[in-house]
Amino acid sequence: MSEIVTAAMVVIGDEILSGRTKDRNIGHLADIMTAIGIDLKEVRIVPDEEDEIVAAINAVRARYTYVFTSGGIGPTHDDITADCIAKAFGVGIDIQPEARRRLEAHYEAGMLNAARLRMARIPDGASLIDNPVSAAPGFRLGNVMVMAGVPAIFQAMVGSVAPDLVGGDRLLSRTVIALIPEGAIAEQLGKLQQDYPDLDMGSYPAFRGGKASCAIVLRGTDKARLDAAAEAMHGIFRGMGGEPFENEIV
Amino acid sequence: MSEIVTAAMVVIGDEILSGRTKDRNIGHLADIMTAIGIDLKEVRIVPDEEDEIVAAINAVRARYTYVFTSGGIGPTHDDITADCIAKAFGVGIDIQPEARRRLEAHYEAGMLNAARLRMARIPDGASLIDNPVSAAPGFRLGNVMVMAGVPAIFQAMVGSVAPDLVGGDRLLSRTVIALIPEGAIAEQLGKLQQDYPDLDMGSYPAFRGGKASCAIVLRGTDKARLDAAAEAMHGIFRGMGGEPFENEIV
Repeated sequence: MSEIVTAAMVVIGDEILSGRTKDRNIGHLADIMTAIGIDLKEVRIVPDEEDEIVAAINAVRARYTYVFTSGGIGPTHDDITADCIAKAFGVGIDIQPEARRRLEAHYEAGMLNAARLRMARIPDGASLIDNPVSAAPGFRLGNVMVMAGVPAIFQAMVGSVAPDLVGGDRLLSRTVIALIPEGAIAEQLGKLQQDYPDLDMGSYPAFRGGKASCAIVLRGTDKARLDAAAEAMHGIFRGMGGEPFENEIV
Repeated sequence: MSEIVTAAMVVIGDEILSGRTKDRNIGHLADIMTAIGIDLKEVRIVPDEEDEIVAAINAVRARYTYVFTSGGIGPTHDDITADCIAKAFGVGIDIQPEARRRLEAHYEAGMLNAARLRMARIPDGASLIDNPVSAAPGFRLGNVMVMAGVPAIFQAMVGSVAPDLVGGDRLLSRTVIALIPEGAIAEQLGKLQQDYPDLDMGSYPAFRGGKASCAIVLRGTDKARLDAAAEAMHGIFRGMGGEPFENEIV
């Protein structure tokens, strides 16, 4: 791998931590990052509290190429993400004319009240991220992209920023699965990893149709090396009486 | 609230960060914590890398009453959680007799190979957490509970530790929902929050049947105050032409 591009995500919201809402944005962002060759290295879920949000943002924005946030940019009193980002960067925040224009275009006359206008408050120096669902924009400041928590809007916003992200070398992967418990092949897998230090090898146990099974995920940037290791993994499973395959059955 | 008991979760696993596996343990733990009156304050998802795991564990175990981890306690080379916990606490780690006995009882003769025996490596001073699904135990060291990543096993392990956890004052909640966009009631909600500083009020927008709606979640420990605020919230929604209800329709 010649270049590793990294990312972190900060999920902002008491509702995720209380269990009321089950997060669906982490998995979506993870899929997109993998597809464009960006290594998502860390996710933090924090409550709607200024100190926690500011600390999390500042911890990750210094470490990773990109940071993505979800949640807390709506019109209600508990939506404090934009202010926290401004505070984290030490910049001002105010109604931004273009953001205001988008809200004015979206709402019928008289509906853009003071609370909704809060959604046009954008930290100084940030550029807007389009929201094709409900107009109120996200924004990008430095390497931090601030997006909505509602999954349909989050996904739309990820879609609008993705083309501008610079990915690293694309990771290739092969997944070899068998109805063999991972403990039965763990030792040979460890040796295979030693033979292929340039590849990432992960073992993911699961029950498939009630039977202990495992999926071995091999990842790397060199296709020939990857294919050779995947064939070796097929051999290891077969040696244990397994019938390895590469498509999920559950 | 007389006493606040807090918790954090550390999810360990490249497969969550790559998107290959969609986490189901965070939501489960969040539900259980809420049910027993423990305030889940932070979640971190970290890769299978020693430095990252040790740093995350040490950051959260100092701050919160309880810490729960998921993932990385299986038999393969990428399962390094137990060693990381030992390192974080500065204690030794070795095959623990009772853990070994459980594995011996679970596997048929000859099947407890060296890789599987790794699952009996437990940090010095830790107590075991039962695994009724596949025997290999989790463990508790200090305030950190280390559990499996496979959801069925994670849930079983949470079930076995839950009775020993001491919760704080039980939070009561009422959720008032209407097919009214949150921007329409944001200002009045902000005033309601000012009138009830002892309650937590969160607004969660969503599309219900294609219509903009929001759920206002009110939380607190005083039932009379909670009920009064919930009634006021019904009034706010009705004032906007909404027909508020308290059961989810989607």
